[in-house]
Amino acid sequence: MNTSNNTTRLATFERVESQVRSYSRSFPKMFDRAVGATIFDDKGRAYTDFLAGCSSLNYGHNQPDLKAALIDYISADGIAHGLDMFTRAKEKFLASFERHILTPRGLDYQVQFTGPTGANAVEAALKLARKATGRDNVIAFTNGFHGVTLGALAATGNGKHRQGAATPLSGVTRAAFDGYYGPDVNTADMLERQLSDPSSGMDAPAAILVETVQGEGGLNAASAEWLRQIEAIARRHGALFIIDDIQAGCGRTGGFFSFDGMGLTPDIVTMAKSLSGMGLPLAVTLIKPEYDTWKPAEHNGTFRGNNHAFITAAAALETFWADGGFEAEVARKAAYLSERLEAIADAHGLRTKGRGMMQGVETQGGEQAQAICKLCFDKGLIIEASGSFDEVVKILAPLTISQKQLAAGLDIVDAAFGAVLGSQLAAAE
Amino acid sequence: MNTSNNTTRLATFERVESQVRSYSRSFPKMFDRAVGATIFDDKGRAYTDFLAGCSSLNYGHNQPDLKAALIDYISADGIAHGLDMFTRAKEKFLASFERHILTPRGLDYQVQFTGPTGANAVEAALKLARKATGRDNVIAFTNGFHGVTLGALAATGNGKHRQGAATPLSGVTRAAFDGYYGPDVNTADMLERQLSDPSSGMDAPAAILVETVQGEGGLNAASAEWLRQIEAIARRHGALFIIDDIQAGCGRTGGFFSFDGMGLTPDIVTMAKSLSGMGLPLAVTLIKPEYDTWKPAEHNGTFRGNNHAFITAAAALETFWADGGFEAEVARKAAYLSERLEAIADAHGLRTKGRGMMQGVETQGGEQAQAICKLCFDKGLIIEASGSFDEVVKILAPLTISQKQLAAGLDIVDAAFGAVLGSQLAAAE
Amino acid sequence: MNTSNNTTRLATFERVESQVRSYSRSFPKMFDRAVGATIFDDKGRAYTDFLAGCSSLNYGHNQPDLKAALIDYISADGIAHGLDMFTRAKEKFLASFERHILTPRGLDYQVQFTGPTGANAVEAALKLARKATGRDNVIAFTNGFHGVTLGALAATGNGKHRQGAATPLSGVTRAAFDGYYGPDVNTADMLERQLSDPSSGMDAPAAILVETVQGEGGLNAASAEWLRQIEAIARRHGALFIIDDIQAGCGRTGGFFSFDGMGLTPDIVTMAKSLSGMGLPLAVTLIKPEYDTWKPAEHNGTFRGNNHAFITAAAALETFWADGGFEAEVARKAAYLSERLEAIADAHGLRTKGRGMMQGVETQGGEQAQAICKLCFDKGLIIEASGSFDEVVKILAPLTISQKQLAAGLDIVDAAFGAVLGSQLAAAE
Amino acid sequence: MNTSNNTTRLATFERVESQVRSYSRSFPKMFDRAVGATIFDDKGRAYTDFLAGCSSLNYGHNQPDLKAALIDYISADGIAHGLDMFTRAKEKFLASFERHILTPRGLDYQVQFTGPTGANAVEAALKLARKATGRDNVIAFTNGFHGVTLGALAATGNGKHRQGAATPLSGVTRAAFDGYYGPDVNTADMLERQLSDPSSGMDAPAAILVETVQGEGGLNAASAEWLRQIEAIARRHGALFIIDDIQAGCGRTGGFFSFDGMGLTPDIVTMAKSLSGMGLPLAVTLIKPEYDTWKPAEHNGTFRGNNHAFITAAAALETFWADGGFEAEVARKAAYLSERLEAIADAHGLRTKGRGMMQGVETQGGEQAQAICKLCFDKGLIIEASGSFDEVVKILAPLTISQKQLAAGLDIVDAAFGAVLGSQLAAAE
Repeated sequence: MNTSNNTTRLATFERVESQVRSYSRSFPKMFDRAVGATIFDDKGRAYTDFLAGCSSLNYGHNQPDLKAALIDYISADGIAHGLDMFTRAKEKFLASFERHILTPRGLDYQVQFTGPTGANAVEAALKLARKATGRDNVIAFTNGFHGVTLGALAATGNGKHRQGAATPLSGVTRAAFDGYYGPDVNTADMLERQLSDPSSGMDAPAAILVETVQGEGGLNAASAEWLRQIEAIARRHGALFIIDDIQAGCGRTGGFFSFDGMGLTPDIVTMAKSLSGMGLPLAVTLIKPEYDTWKPAEHNGTFRGNNHAFITAAAALETFWADGGFEAEVARKAAYLSERLEAIADAHGLRTKGRGMMQGVETQGGEQAQAICKLCFDKGLIIEASGSFDEVVKILAPLTISQKQLAAGLDIVDAAFGAVLGSQLAAAE
Repeated sequence: MNTSNNTTRLATFERVESQVRSYSRSFPKMFDRAVGATIFDDKGRAYTDFLAGCSSLNYGHNQPDLKAALIDYISADGIAHGLDMFTRAKEKFLASFERHILTPRGLDYQVQFTGPTGANAVEAALKLARKATGRDNVIAFTNGFHGVTLGALAATGNGKHRQGAATPLSGVTRAAFDGYYGPDVNTADMLERQLSDPSSGMDAPAAILVETVQGEGGLNAASAEWLRQIEAIARRHGALFIIDDIQAGCGRTGGFFSFDGMGLTPDIVTMAKSLSGMGLPLAVTLIKPEYDTWKPAEHNGTFRGNNHAFITAAAALETFWADGGFEAEVARKAAYLSERLEAIADAHGLRTKGRGMMQGVETQGGEQAQAICKLCFDKGLIIEASGSFDEVVKILAPLTISQKQLAAGLDIVDAAFGAVLGSQLAAAE
Repeated sequence: MNTSNNTTRLATFERVESQVRSYSRSFPKMFDRAVGATIFDDKGRAYTDFLAGCSSLNYGHNQPDLKAALIDYISADGIAHGLDMFTRAKEKFLASFERHILTPRGLDYQVQFTGPTGANAVEAALKLARKATGRDNVIAFTNGFHGVTLGALAATGNGKHRQGAATPLSGVTRAAFDGYYGPDVNTADMLERQLSDPSSGMDAPAAILVETVQGEGGLNAASAEWLRQIEAIARRHGALFIIDDIQAGCGRTGGFFSFDGMGLTPDIVTMAKSLSGMGLPLAVTLIKPEYDTWKPAEHNGTFRGNNHAFITAAAALETFWADGGFEAEVARKAAYLSERLEAIADAHGLRTKGRGMMQGVETQGGEQAQAICKLCFDKGLIIEASGSFDEVVKILAPLTISQKQLAAGLDIVDAAFGAVLGSQLAAAE
Repeated sequence: MNTSNNTTRLATFERVESQVRSYSRSFPKMFDRAVGATIFDDKGRAYTDFLAGCSSLNYGHNQPDLKAALIDYISADGIAHGLDMFTRAKEKFLASFERHILTPRGLDYQVQFTGPTGANAVEAALKLARKATGRDNVIAFTNGFHGVTLGALAATGNGKHRQGAATPLSGVTRAAFDGYYGPDVNTADMLERQLSDPSSGMDAPAAILVETVQGEGGLNAASAEWLRQIEAIARRHGALFIIDDIQAGCGRTGGFFSFDGMGLTPDIVTMAKSLSGMGLPLAVTLIKPEYDTWKPAEHNGTFRGNNHAFITAAAALETFWADGGFEAEVARKAAYLSERLEAIADAHGLRTKGRGMMQGVETQGGEQAQAICKLCFDKGLIIEASGSFDEVVKILAPLTISQKQLAAGLDIVDAAFGAVLGSQLAAAE
C-alpha cells in the first residue's frame, strides 16, 4: 500500500474532487477494503456498515461466490463491455432471472437493460408509459425519490435535488403518499376523487409511479391495501402502474420484489442498486410484454451491457434466490431488527418506521439524528439518516450480516440514542 | 463452456429481453470472450472489432495491465461500491488524472463523479451551467448527441431518440454545427448574429454545449477556428462553454482531450466511455473551480463511486498517458487510416469524414452503408454506420490495435465498398 | 331590420362561423336588442337573462346612465382606441376608481390595464408574481377557472379546456379548494403541510391564485376563514396572494370586491367581466405598489386602452358605488334569492351553492341540469349550468333586475325543477 | 370639459396607474378627441397621428360611417355583450365578411371569434395546429411579434417581452426570417435543410407561423417567393401554414390580407387590430374547414361577442371593401410614401424598409430614431420606432389620411431627419 500519510492523501480530494462530494464529509476516512458487513479504512480500522451502499450491497461487500465468479470471468477474458449485443454473461443473467424470479411468480416481464443507474431505469419507464398512453402527466408521491436526471427528478420530491436542476421541472403531478396526512386520511381516496373529477386540474395520467417503502423519503412504508387501491386507480384511469423497486427490492424488505405477496402486478418495475449483487452499476426496467413497444435503441446508453455486473448478478440469483432459505433468513433478521428498534424507540418515546431490513427510528429532528449517526461513526458504525429533515436514523445493514455483528451494531445505535437523547434531556433540565 | 446450442441460447433473449435491443440485431451472434481488437463468439469465431463499444474500448478489450490491476484489486477485497466516500481507488485515479492529464495542460478542473453514464455527466453539466448563470436556455447543435435522459435528450438532435421521450423537450435552442449549411456559410457568425439581436427570439444562454467531432451525428469534425469562435461567443454572451468529450475524448482523436492543442479552455468537460479504460461504467464532469458551486449531494447517484472503474482508469492513465508514446502511436495509425479511407472514398467518388481514429466514409445513403456493414460482418468485422441517415461507415477501432489487424480490417472494408458499390453500379447499368 | 327569414340568417352562422360556438347551441335564436334583464330575439320575443354575460352584465344590458355617457362620448369624437396613452376617459376611470373603490377601503393598488380579457389580466398577474419572487411554481385550486390562454390555462382546472391546449401545461401545482374533500377535511392545513415539507415535491410558490367563489367550477364558495388561512400560508412561504375576482367581483357577491369585509389584502387582484359595466372588453390587474416592477410595455397589448370601456366603467362607478345604496339592494336580492333556491333545493332533496347573487342548486347530474335549463329557455329564461359535470343550475341575474322580474324568473326555475325531477321520479317509478 | 389643470390630472396616472405604461412616456399629453388622422390633446392642440393605434386605426379615428352605425346601434339598445350567441350584429359582420372578403378570394375559412386581442387569436391558432397534427413544436421567426400571453409569447422574438414571462417559454423553435442573414442567404432553404434532416434536432412542426411584414420587428417584409417557399415547406412536412395578419392586414399593405395576390392559401389566419375598423377590441382566427375541429367552447372567453365591434367592423367592410376603390387609393398613397421615404433615406445614406402603408426608414440606431420621433412630436406628429434596437422610424398613418395631411406629416419627418442627422454630422465634424 501507499506510504503517504492520511493527511496528504485526503488532500488529493480537497484539491481535485468537486464540492458535490457528500458521504466523505460524514465519514472522513480513506476506505480501502471491505468484506461482508465490514469495511476497513487505510489504517486498518474496521467499521460495521449499516449503510450498505444505500441498499446496493444487500449481499455484503465482496461476497465470496460473486467475487469468485467475477475473477474467473475476467481471468478468462470475458467481455466486459458489450453494448447491447448478445453475450454469454447476459444470457446467464437473463436465464437465471427468468428461472428464479419471473417464472416462480408467474410474471412475464421483458427485461430492458437501461443505462446502469436507477435514474436511467426510471427515465426509461416514464418514456414507455408516455408512449403507451399518449399522455404526458405522471403521478408521483410526496417524499418519493427516483433519481436526479431531469425526467426522473421531476418525479422526485426532495427540494434540494429539485432546486439543483435550476430549471422548472414538468410533467409530474404530486399525490400524497400513504399516511401523509396522518392515519385517518386515506390519500388513495383523495387521488381517486381528483382523477374522477374532470375539472380537478389533474390531467389524465400516463403512469402512477410509487415506491412501496420510501427509503430516501424517511422509511415511509405503504400498506398493501393502499398499494392495491393505487393499482386499481391506475387501471381505472388508463395509467400504467409503475413500482420503483430500486431501493426496496432485491430482498431488502424480505422478498425479491418489495411487493411480493401483496397481490400487485405492476406494469413496469424499475430495479438497480443491489441487482448486480456486488455493487456494480446495473439497472433494468421490467416491462409487461404489451408495453414493450420500444423501437430498437430508442432508449440507449453506452454502458447498458455491463457484463461484469451480469456475471455477479447471475451469481447472486443462483446463490440467494434459488430456494427460500435466504428469504427466511432475512425475515428472521428483520424480526430481530424490529424488536431492537422498537425497544430503542420506546425508551425515548419515539417511533420506528419502515419494513423488513429497511427500518429506522424517527428522532425529534435532523440535528438529533446527525448527532446519533456521528456518535455511531466514532464507535465504528457507518449509518445515516433520511427523511424530509434527515430525522430518521436508518438501518440498511447487508442482509447477509451475521446475527452477532447485527446485534453489536444495534448496541452501538442503542447507546448513541441513549447518549444523545439522554444528554439532551440533561441539557433541557 | 455451455453445451446448449446457439438457437436455444439466443431464444432466451427472444423470450426475456426487451425489443429495445439493437446491436444484437446487426450482429446476431452470442459473444463470449474478447482480447485487444478481437472478439470471439461462442463458436470460437474471431471478429475484428471496429466498433470498440462506440469508443468505450479505446485501449481494446481486456487490456493486460488494466485486467491485472482489476483482478489484484478484487482479489484483495478492494471496495467495489463506495458511494462518494474517500477510497484508495478513487484517490489513485484522481492523483493520476491530476498528474498525467490536468497538470501538464495547466488545467485546474474539479472532478465530479456523476452517475456512471455519459448522459448523467451531461445532465450534471447543464444543471451547473443553469445554476451558475440563472438562465434556462442551453444552445446545442444540429446532429449533436448527448444522451437520452430527459435533460440530455433535449440537447440531442436525433429524431428517433427525441420522439422516444413522448413528451416535449425544452430548455435547449438549436444552432447549426460547423459546415451544416455547406463550406461557404460560417454558422458561428449566424449564432453570433442571433445572440446579438435582442429580438431574435434566442434567449440568453446558460451554456453552449458542443462536441468537437460528432460521433453519432456522422463524424462531423469542427475546425479549431470555428470552436474558438464558439468559445468566444460563449464568453461574450455570458454562457458557459461546455465540451462533451464523451465519444471523442480519451485519445480517440489523438490527444487525451479531443480539443488538445486547439487553444480552448472549456468551462466544463464531460467524459465517459473510454475513461475507465476497460469499458466499465464511469463518467465525470470536469468543472472550472469557479463554477463548482454544488451543495453536497445536490447531484447524486448510487453508482458514482464505481471503484473497479477507478482502478482500471488509473491503470489506463499510467499505462498510456504517462508519456507521449501512445499519442504518437495513435497519430501514426490515424494517418494510415486517413490514407486508406481516402483511397476507398476516391475509388467511389465519395468523401471521408472525421478526425484521428474517428473517421469514416460517407456513402450515398443508409441502405448502402448497411449493406457494406453487413458484408463486413460476414467477413468477420464488426462495424457500424452513423449520421442522420446512417450513411457514414464509421471506423472506431481500438487505438491499441496492431498495424496488421488494422490493415486487415480495412481490407475487409475496402472489399465491401467494392462489392456493394460495384454491384450497385452493375445493377444501375 | 333585415327581411330575410330566420332560417336563412342562422344559415350564415352554419356556413361561416367556427364549430367552437357554444351558447348559440343552447339558445338557438337570433338575438337583437337588450335592456336591463331582458333580451329580445329578432322576432321580438323577450327573454329574462339569468346568465348576464357570465357575470359581465351585473348592471344589466344598456343601463341608461352608461349608455348615455357612451353615446355622448362617441358623439363628441372621444378617442376610442388610445393604446396606453393618457386620455381624458382613462383619467376619469382612474379617478373614480380611486375615489369610490380604493380610498374607502384603504387600498393603494396600482392599476394595470392589460389586454381587455380576464385571461390577459391573469397572465399579467402570474408574470409579475414570478418576476417578484424569482420562482416558477404557481399554486391554483381544483375547479378553478382563470382563462384559456396558455399561462392562465395552466391554472385552470377544467379538463376540456386543458386538453384544448394540445400541449402539456406547466408551472402550476394544484391544491384542493375549500371543502374539496368534504366538510371535515381542512384543505388549507394540507397545503401548509406540503409547503412546510422540503421533500413534498411542491416547489416554493411564486403565488397562490384563488377565486373566493368558483363560478365556472360549480359555485364553490370559500369561507372567509379558509381564505385568511390561505393568505397566511402565502405570506409565510414567500408567495404572492392573488385573488381572481373576474367573475365574483363588481358586486356579484355583494361588495365591489368579493373579499370585502373578509380581512384579506391580496397582493394582486384581477378584474374584468362587469368592470366596464356595459359588457365592453376591459380588464385590469391591481397591484400592490411594491410589486409593480414592470418595465414600460413589458406586458402590452393593442387594446389595453379601450376608452369606450373607460367611459362606461367610470359611469358605473359613479352610478352604483358612490354610496352604499346599491350594495344594500344587492344584499336584499341575494337574501331573497337564497330563500327561493333553498325552497327549491329542499323540495327535491338537493342543496344550494354559492354566495350573494351568485348562487345555484346542485342537481343530481349534468343531464338533469341541462334538462332544467332547456325547459327554462322554452319558458323564456336564459340560464346555464356549471360545475365539473355541469350539474349546478346557476343564477347569474343582473344585480339591477327588478324584484318582480327576479321573482318571475325564479318561478320558471322552480317549475322546471318540478317538471324535470317530477318527471324523472315518474320515469323511475 | 374638466376644469382641473393638466398637472393635476396627469397626477392621477402617476398615483394610480402601473409603471407598465409606455406610450404615455413618449407622448406625455392628455389626449381627448380624435377625428380621422388628427388627435387632439385637452388643450385643443392637434397632432397628426402616424401611429394609428399601431395599425388598429387604418380607417382613422371616429370614421363617420362607422361612428354613425355604432351610435345608431347603441341608441336602439342593440346587444353590447353577447357571449357567443347568435346576434344580428354578428350575422351582419359574418355576412359582410363572407361577401366582400372571402367569396371574392375563393376562400372558405370558418371564422372563430376568440377573446378580443390579437394574442388570443394567436393562442387559438396554435392550439388548433397542435390538435390537428398531434405535434407540439411550432416554428416562428426571428423578430416576429405575436403577443405576450404565454402561448403567443413563446413565438414572439422580442427579448424584453420574453423576459417578462419570468418563466421559460417552450414549444417554439426559431427560424430565420427572409433576409435575416443578408440578401445572399436563402433562409427558407436553411429551414428545409433542418426539417429534412432527422437528426437536426428540429422536431416535426405543428405549424409555421409567420408575418408577411414584421411590424414590431422593424418592418421586415418577406418576398412573395420566400413566403411561397415557406408554405411549401409547411405542406411538405405536415405542418399548418399560419399567417399572423394582425398588424399587416386590413389594407395596411394594400389588399385586405397582406398576402393578397401572392398565391398563398394559409391554413389559418389571425386578425385583430383594424378589424373592428374603429379601434374596438375584436379578433378572429380564420380556419380552413378541415382544421375547424374545435369542440364547443373548447377555446372560449367572456368578450368573444363584442357586438359593438361587429357593427363597426361590418360598416368598415361595406364602406371600404365593397369595391376596389379604397385599395387603389391605398396603393397611390403607398407609392407616394415610398417616394418620400426613399428621398429621406437617400439624403442620409439610409435605407427604407417595409411595404405598402407600412414603411419606414432604418436609422443608425435607437437613440437616433428616438431623437427623430421626439422632434416630430414637438412639431405635432405622433410617430414611433420599431426594430430590435428601435432603430426604424415607422410610418403607420391612417390609410384614409388626406394627401395633404400625409404630405405635411412627411415634411415634419423629413425635417426631423435633417435636424438630427445634420446635427449629428455637425457634432461629428
